Amino acid sequence: MEHTIDLKNFSLRTDLITELTTEKQVGISSQCQEEEGIKITEVEVLKEGEEQIGKKQGFYTTIEFSDVTDYHLKEKVKEVFSKYLKKLLEKTGILQDASCLVIGLGNEKSSPDALGPATIENILVTNHLFQYGTPEEGFRPVAAIKSNVTGVTGIETNQFILGIVKEIKPDFLIVIDALASQSLDRLNKTIQLSNTGIHPGSGVGNKRKEISFQTIGIPVIAIGVPTVVDALTIVSDTIKYLYRHYAFHKQYDKKPSSKLTMSSQINYLKENVEILQEDKKNLLGIIGTLSEEERKQLLFEVLTPIGYNLIVTPKEFDFELEHLADILGNGINRALHKKVNHL
Amino acid sequence: MEHTIDLKNFSLRTDLITELTTEKQVGISSQCQEEEGIKITEVEVLKEGEEQIGKKQGFYTTIEFSDVTDYHLKEKVKEVFSKYLKKLLEKTGILQDASCLVIGLGNEKSSPDALGPATIENILVTNHLFQYGTPEEGFRPVAAIKSNVTGVTGIETNQFILGIVKEIKPDFLIVIDALASQSLDRLNKTIQLSNTGIHPGSGVGNKRKEISFQTIGIPVIAIGVPTVVDALTIVSDTIKYLYRHYAFHKQYDKKPSSKLTMSSQINYLKENVEILQEDKKNLLGIIGTLSEEERKQLLFEVLTPIGYNLIVTPKEFDFELEHLADILGNGINRALHKKVNHL
Amino acid sequence: MEHTIDLKNFSLRTDLITELTTEKQVGISSQCQEEEGIKITEVEVLKEGEEQIGKKQGFYTTIEFSDVTDYHLKEKVKEVFSKYLKKLLEKTGILQDASCLVIGLGNEKSSPDALGPATIENILVTNHLFQYGTPEEGFRPVAAIKSNVTGVTGIETNQFILGIVKEIKPDFLIVIDALASQSLDRLNKTIQLSNTGIHPGSGVGNKRKEISFQTIGIPVIAIGVPTVVDALTIVSDTIKYLYRHYAFHKQYDKKPSSKLTMSSQINYLKENVEILQEDKKNLLGIIGTLSEEERKQLLFEVLTPIGYNLIVTPKEFDFELEHLADILGNGINRALHKKVNHL
Amino acid sequence: MEHTIDLKNFSLRTDLITELTTEKQVGISSQCQEEEGIKITEVEVLKEGEEQIGKKQGFYTTIEFSDVTDYHLKEKVKEVFSKYLKKLLEKTGILQDASCLVIGLGNEKSSPDALGPATIENILVTNHLFQYGTPEEGFRPVAAIKSNVTGVTGIETNQFILGIVKEIKPDFLIVIDALASQSLDRLNKTIQLSNTGIHPGSGVGNKRKEISFQTIGIPVIAIGVPTVVDALTIVSDTIKYLYRHYAFHKQYDKKPSSKLTMSSQINYLKENVEILQEDKKNLLGIIGTLSEEERKQLLFEVLTPIGYNLIVTPKEFDFELEHLADILGNGINRALHKKVNHL
Repeated sequence: MEHTIDLKNFSLRTDLITELTTEKQVGISSQCQEEEGIKITEVEVLKEGEEQIGKKQGFYTTIEFSDVTDYHLKEKVKEVFSKYLKKLLEKTGILQDASCLVIGLGNEKSSPDALGPATIENILVTNHLFQYGTPEEGFRPVAAIKSNVTGVTGIETNQFILGIVKEIKPDFLIVIDALASQSLDRLNKTIQLSNTGIHPGSGVGNKRKEISFQTIGIPVIAIGVPTVVDALTIVSDTIKYLYRHYAFHKQYDKKPSSKLTMSSQINYLKENVEILQEDKKNLLGIIGTLSEEERKQLLFEVLTPIGYNLIVTPKEFDFELEHLADILGNGINRALHKKVNHL
Repeated sequence: MEHTIDLKNFSLRTDLITELTTEKQVGISSQCQEEEGIKITEVEVLKEGEEQIGKKQGFYTTIEFSDVTDYHLKEKVKEVFSKYLKKLLEKTGILQDASCLVIGLGNEKSSPDALGPATIENILVTNHLFQYGTPEEGFRPVAAIKSNVTGVTGIETNQFILGIVKEIKPDFLIVIDALASQSLDRLNKTIQLSNTGIHPGSGVGNKRKEISFQTIGIPVIAIGVPTVVDALTIVSDTIKYLYRHYAFHKQYDKKPSSKLTMSSQINYLKENVEILQEDKKNLLGIIGTLSEEERKQLLFEVLTPIGYNLIVTPKEFDFELEHLADILGNGINRALHKKVNHL
Repeated sequence: MEHTIDLKNFSLRTDLITELTTEKQVGISSQCQEEEGIKITEVEVLKEGEEQIGKKQGFYTTIEFSDVTDYHLKEKVKEVFSKYLKKLLEKTGILQDASCLVIGLGNEKSSPDALGPATIENILVTNHLFQYGTPEEGFRPVAAIKSNVTGVTGIETNQFILGIVKEIKPDFLIVIDALASQSLDRLNKTIQLSNTGIHPGSGVGNKRKEISFQTIGIPVIAIGVPTVVDALTIVSDTIKYLYRHYAFHKQYDKKPSSKLTMSSQINYLKENVEILQEDKKNLLGIIGTLSEEERKQLLFEVLTPIGYNLIVTPKEFDFELEHLADILGNGINRALHKKVNHL
Repeated sequence: MEHTIDLKNFSLRTDLITELTTEKQVGISSQCQEEEGIKITEVEVLKEGEEQIGKKQGFYTTIEFSDVTDYHLKEKVKEVFSKYLKKLLEKTGILQDASCLVIGLGNEKSSPDALGPATIENILVTNHLFQYGTPEEGFRPVAAIKSNVTGVTGIETNQFILGIVKEIKPDFLIVIDALASQSLDRLNKTIQLSNTGIHPGSGVGNKRKEISFQTIGIPVIAIGVPTVVDALTIVSDTIKYLYRHYAFHKQYDKKPSSKLTMSSQINYLKENVEILQEDKKNLLGIIGTLSEEERKQLLFEVLTPIGYNLIVTPKEFDFELEHLADILGNGINRALHKKVNHL
C-alpha cells in the first residue's frame, strides 16, 4: 500500500499574472508582442474572469527581458516600460495634468526588498514647485516618498499611505514593490504593471492590507519586479528540468545515431514539452504521480514547519538593483512628465 | 569721514536657547547643574518672557558635553539625556502609557542633515504589536518614521506629519532634527530638548511651517543637536578670540616678568573677559567699534549676496554621527519604555 | 529498460570540513564539545588523511550556533570564537607578540560576499603606533586591509596580498572570507577556523590561487562563514526531508493510534534516520535509486549548463551580516590583544 | 605703544599651485585658456623655480569650473579633464599601451575624504583580462585599488603602494586624493593634475611620506580636488571681502548720484582691486596693517592651540561627491582607453 499524501490548500507565493494565465480562460483576454528581444504581455481581466484567475478586474502588463546590466538593453527596457506605463495611465483614464504621488514600498536595508525605496531616489519631484507658482510647461505635480515595512515603523503601510493621501490629495498613486516569483528564471527579468493596486509585502510572506482604488479612493498603479523565490520553487523548477532531461535522453538513447551538439542539449531543457505520465512515475516514483500543484503543496507541507522554505535571492542581486531602480525611476519620469528629456 | 554702515535686521542662524540667554531676563528662569563633566541647563520661558528671548513659552533643557567618541562619556551622556527627557515628558504632562510617534527630520544623504533619520534606525518600535494583543508590561506603543526634506519628497514636512498623525493618532510626538549653532565650539557637543515644537530645516536656512502643539494638536517634544555653522559665525568667533589675545598680550607685555606656561596661554582665550572699547578700536578699526550684533549683521550683508556665507560642518562629523544617533535613539528608548535594559 | 545516468566527476561547492567528515577516517582525528548550545568540532587532518578528505594537513575548528540576532547568544558565540581562535594560534605556534595582518576578502557591494570587508571595519589596528614608540602593554602590532575581488581591482588576490606581506612583513596572516555551504541549515550559523590557508572566492565559484604558508611564506589563519548555497543544494536537502517525511508517515499510518503532537511532527524531519532502499525507490523512482553523491552529480549536470544552478542567499542576510562581522571582528580583537576589554 | 605681533613661520594648508603663483616668477612658465566657461591653467615649474614656489619641478594643470551638479557643465568638465589628462600623460612620456595602476587615497567613511575611493568605483578595470589573452584593441591594462588612511589600516600609505607596485609592476600610477584649499571659493570647483606625485593626507593635516617617481620608481600622475578649508581661510577670505566692501562704499558714498544695480553691488566683491593701506588701517586697525601672510600667521597662532582652526567642508558636499567621482573616474577611463565610448 502506498502512502497517500494529504493535500490541503496552500497559498503559492506568486505576484506575477503571467504565472497564472497559462491557457485561454473566460473573462480574460491577453495579447503578446515583442520589441527588440523584449516580450510584452497585456492582459485584461474582466469581472467574470476574476475568480478563475484569482486576480482583480483590470489591466496587467508584463515586460520580460534578459540582462539588465547590459547598457543598451537597459535603455531599451526603460523605453518600453515608459511607453506601456503611459498606455496604462491612459487606459485607467488618468489625465496629463493629474497630480501623482509615487510610493516606494520595502526595507532599504535588505537588498531584495529595497527596489521600491531605491526607485524613489530617481523620481523627479515637482509637487512643491506648483505651490509657489506655475513651473515650466510639460511637467505635472509629482511627489515621492518611501514607505518602510511595518516591522520597522510600527505603522501599517496602508494607514501610512492613507494618512498622506488624505492630506496631500494627489489624483493618483504609483506604488512600487519587490515581488515574489514562482520561477527563478524570471527574477529581476520581469516588470509587472497593473491598475488594480497592490498587497504590500505579499512578495515576502507578510499579508498587509490592500492598497487600491477600493481602499484609498484614487486610482493605484502598481509596478513590481520579482526579486525573491522560495526554496520549494527551486525544487519544483528542478523537477521540471529533470523530467525534460529524462524524456529527452530516453528518446535519444533509442536513436543514438543522431548527433547532438552541446547547445541542442541545453535547448531541450528550455522547451516546454509534454512528459508521459509513465515517464514521470518511472523517474520520480510517487512524487512523479502528483500534479504540479499537489507536488508544490506537499513540499510546502514538509518544508514550511521546519523553517526550511526559505526565501532566497540570487547572489548577484545587489549589482542588478541599481539598474532596475534606474529603469523604473527614470521610466516613470518620462511617462509622467512630457518635458523630460532622455537623461 | 568714516564710512557708516547701514544696519538692518537680519536673522541670526541659531536654534540654541543657551546662545540667547546670556543674562537675567524677566519671565525666564533657568538653573544649571553638572554631572560628571556634563553640563545641564534647564530654562523655563514664561508667557511674558517670550518676546524678550524670541523663544516660545515652555521648557528647554540643554545638555553640553565634550567628546562623544569616548565610550564611557558617551554612555554617561546617554544616561543623562534619557533622565532629562523623562523629566521633560513629566513636566509636559505625558502619561506613562501614552503612545508616541518618533519622527526623524532631515536628508540622510547629507551627513550634517542626517541625524534625525540616523536616530530613527535605533528606535525600538512596538506600536504594531499593540494592535495584535497586549505586549509585555513595561512597554508603551511607539512608532517611528523618517521625514525627508521637501526638496526630495515634494511634500511640506508639516503636511506629511499632519497626515500621519491624523491617521495613526499618537498621544504625542518626539521630533529629532539637526540644528544650526552660533558657535563652532558647541557643534556635536550639545543636545537641546524642548516641549515647544520645532521649525524643520531652520538649522539650514529653510523656513518651513512649525511643528508644535498649536499646528499638530498634540504635544511635540523637540530634540536637536547643532551640526552646522555658517561662515559668519566662524569669523565672529575668531574676532572674539583676537580681542582676548590682544587684551592678554597688552597686559602681559607690560609685566613680562610673570612666567606664562603654554596652557595658561591657551586658557586666556577660553575665558570670557571684558575688552576695553579702546582696545577693540585699536585692534580692529571701524570693525572694532561695532557691537557684536552690528558686526554679524555687516558680515551677513557682505557675505550673503555673493554666496559666501556658506554653511559648513567639521570634517570629522561622519565619525560622530553614529555616536550621536546611538545616544539619542537608545536614550529615547530608555525614556519611553520602562522595561528597556541598558543595551 | 531504464535510462541509466552517466556519472562523471563534478565539484561539490563546499568549504566546510564538517560536511566532509561524516565517518571515522584514517589520518583524521576529531573531537566535539558543546558550550551553552554552541557546538564546537575540532578536527586534525594528518598527512595521511589529506587525500581521503580532500583537505590539507592542519587544524580545523568548526563552531555551530543558532540565532546570531539574539544579543546574548551573539555575545556567547563571540566569546567561544575568541577562545578557540586563541587556541588555534597557540597550536600553530604563533607567539603572543607576533605581528598580524588581518585581511578581509570579498566585494563589499554584494551582501553575501561582504563578510570579509565588514569584519575589517571592526578590527582594532595598532601597527602604526608601534612605529612611533611602544604602545601600552597588552597589545601586539595589528594591521588590517580589505582585499576586493579580482573583477573589481584587476589584480589577483594572492598577488595583492603577497605584495603587501613582502613590504609590511607581518609574522602571520588572518584571512576572512565568505564560504559556500552544502546545506541551507548551516548558512550564517557556522564559523570555520583553520591554519591551512584559503582559496579566495571558492565560496562563489571562482577559483583563485591559494593563500597559505606554502604560497605566502608565513602562517595563514583562515576564518570563514558559509553565506551562500547553490540551487542543487536546496534540491538535495529537500529530497532528504521528503525521505524522512515518507518513512515517518508510512510507519505512522500503520499505527494511527499513537498521538503525535505538532512538534514531534517537526522533529522527525530534523533527525538523521536510515531510510530503506525500497522506500526511496517507491517515493522517488529512479532518482530514489541514486546515492546522494550520484544524485547531486545528476542535478549538477542538468542545472549547470542552463545557468539554473544559481548561487543564492537567504533574504534576511543583510540583517545578519553586521552581527557576524561584530562576532568576527571583536572576537579577533580579543584573541590578538590581551588588554582588550569586552566591548 | 601698540602691541607688536610676533611672526614665526607656519605652514599654509594648500595643495593648489594656482594659490601660489600670483605673479611672474623665474623658472615658472604658465599659460591660461578658457573653454566654454571652464578655465584651464597649465604651469611648468623648472628646476630653478622649485624653491621659489615650493613645488617640485614638473607640469601642473588646473581646471576651474562652477556648478558640478549641472548635467551639461559636468559633461563638458569631464571632456576637458580627459583631454588635459591625456596631454599630461604625453608630456610625461607615457606610451599608449603602458599599464596603469589607479589608486584612490582617503577614507570612504568620511565624505570630504572620500573622493579617491569614490572615483575608484568608476574605473574601468582591464588588467586581469590581459593575463588570460589579448582583449579587444583600444584598451590598455588598468588596475584600480583604494588605499585607506593609516589610522584605519595601520599601514603607511607609501608602504602599501610600494608593496603592490613591486608585485604588480605597472608602468605608471594615477593617484587621486582630496586636497585642502586656501579659498572657500575653489572648493569642489577645481581639479588639479600634476606629474610630480602627491603627499597623501596633506589636505587634512597629516603629512605622510611622498608618493612620487623618486620614492616609487615609476611616473606618478596626481589628481586632486580641494574639498576642505580651515577656519582661518574663511576668516582671511572674509577680511578680503570686507576691504572691497569698504573701498567700494567709500567711493560710492562720495558720488551717490551713480545708480548701482544689485548685481554691480555683488560684482565689486568679486573683483580683485587694490586697497589703500590707509583704508585697511581705518577699517581693521592693527589687523589692517598686517600683510596677508602676517594676518594668516596671527590667526594660525591664535586659533590652532585652542583647537579652533577646524577643518570644515560645505554642507552640500555629499551631493557633489558623486558628480566629482563621475568626472574623475570616467574622465580617466577616456584618457586611458582609446575605445571607451562616452557613457
